[in-house]
Amino acid sequence: MKILGLHHVAAAVDNLEKYSSLFETLFGIEASSIETNPANKVALSFVRLGNSELEFLKPLDDNSPIYKFLQKRGPGIHHICLLVDDIRGALDELKAKNINMIDQNPRQGANGSLIAFIHPESTGGILIELKQENIG
Amino acid sequence: MKILGLHHVAAAVDNLEKYSSLFETLFGIEASSIETNPANKVALSFVRLGNSELEFLKPLDDNSPIYKFLQKRGPGIHHICLLVDDIRGALDELKAKNINMIDQNPRQGANGSLIAFIHPESTGGILIELKQENIG
Repeated sequence: MKILGLHHVAAAVDNLEKYSSLFETLFGIEASSIETNPANKVALSFVRLGNSELEFLKPLDDNSPIYKFLQKRGPGIHHICLLVDDIRGALDELKAKNINMIDQNPRQGANGSLIAFIHPESTGGILIELKQENIG
Repeated sequence: MKILGLHHVAAAVDNLEKYSSLFETLFGIEASSIETNPANKVALSFVRLGNSELEFLKPLDDNSPIYKFLQKRGPGIHHICLLVDDIRGALDELKAKNINMIDQNPRQGANGSLIAFIHPESTGGILIELKQENIG
């Protein structure tokens, strides 16, 4: 497995329009349009930050993990996403090291990518998503 | 002001050696050596993630803001740092928009950089550091 870079940082928020317009006000950066991702129970938008992205995640319902995060901690940074060259190989390596995965197998992410989350128990409290892009 | 990119993501931790060795175990990425920054009351190390960095911050004493964060929330992502082309211009622009700054003026960061934090009250709960590198 090879880490290719930091794909995005994701923040849990309660209002996508507010955060999208906030980053335009603060930095003159226009946010993406808002998409919904029913499989993950979130609506999302993002702002490009040169080499990486800041993603805003709003829960679609009370069963979303983002909803629980907001209830417990309020809006703030929720996870980081690392780009890998080979997500299946990465999961095999991590499981062989007894790393606790939220996703035992890669699942479908945006734009044909594959993603998997490592359990924060195994990363000292930092929630990490792995992503492989351009899956054929 | 122009945002050039995401310089780093910083996590508050209680043990730098643990997190440095964790990222080597998980991803085979060797962490930097540990430095202390007495002015900010932290010790720190970082791992390169291709296009960006993940920084680990450990409080040097109970008066460090990182100590308060750990007491309240436990280890986790503390702030993101955006690289700007002109930090003085950025602060002038933000203050003209009535954005609440933790630092009213840029202060010395690592390696001759200048840094300033925006108050999370003005960013909807996301703590943002601005950094200008290569100050003459």
